[in-house]
Amino acid sequence: MVTFNSIGVVHNDVNKMSTGNYAQAESRIEINADLAPGLQGLAEFSHVVVVFHLDRIPPFDKEKQLLRNPRGMEHLAPVGVFAQRTKFRPNPIGVTPVRLVSIQGNTLIVAGLDAMDGTPVLDVKPYIPEFDRVDNVKMPDWVVTMVQGYF
Amino acid sequence: MVTFNSIGVVHNDVNKMSTGNYAQAESRIEINADLAPGLQGLAEFSHVVVVFHLDRIPPFDKEKQLLRNPRGMEHLAPVGVFAQRTKFRPNPIGVTPVRLVSIQGNTLIVAGLDAMDGTPVLDVKPYIPEFDRVDNVKMPDWVVTMVQGYF
Repeated sequence: MVTFNSIGVVHNDVNKMSTGNYAQAESRIEINADLAPGLQGLAEFSHVVVVFHLDRIPPFDKEKQLLRNPRGMEHLAPVGVFAQRTKFRPNPIGVTPVRLVSIQGNTLIVAGLDAMDGTPVLDVKPYIPEFDRVDNVKMPDWVVTMVQGYF
Repeated sequence: MVTFNSIGVVHNDVNKMSTGNYAQAESRIEINADLAPGLQGLAEFSHVVVVFHLDRIPPFDKEKQLLRNPRGMEHLAPVGVFAQRTKFRPNPIGVTPVRLVSIQGNTLIVAGLDAMDGTPVLDVKPYIPEFDRVDNVKMPDWVVTMVQGYF
């Protein structure tokens, strides 16, 4: 068991759970004032990885959510939660690389964050392709179909 | 403040903190037996994102760790923690995409995980390029130099 305190909070216009189309959404991430010196040098990066707590998600329901059909894929066999990007996970942690538009004081302006207004942020890391980018990825056909309708 | 329980644990030969060269390291991630059905369908993916708790890292020392020189870059101006991938962070959360070699029962065999033996795992997500991969990334020169020596 581990406890984390948020390092900041998301501000945007997203007030209900959505199922996609975050690619263009702009959010502000307000970093706690006492941690703001930790942003020094971040503006030199074009992208950051945001780690956040999906705090509006109800407690994980093992019976219903450990195995389920991906959204809109009711004709397939159920898929395990760890083979999906569903928000309904044993630990509701989001990890999303976003474009860093600008930094204003202790606030990051980012594009493409799939988080609601008020979401607690746990970490911000610079996106470094040598660590974060994978080429030659294989995934099942249902994911290929799903992501076509996502953006 | 949020509390998470681990969903599994890392097993490997890494028993001291390292500063790189994880690219080839093979690890086993043993998922808690009660959550093992959540692995259904994961074997169809070539890569997964592992979210883990860097549990051997001492509490964050704001005085010393909020702003510091990147490793081996003592000639530069200090850089903020959020502009670095250092392990010494306000919330010691690791996020690493790894190659999924195979799944044996409730154990994932993965290559490239930068975590020590015994590390608690918080989440496993399938790596999906449309969500996780960023092209045309810009980053400062010191990072370019650093990653050259990393692998």
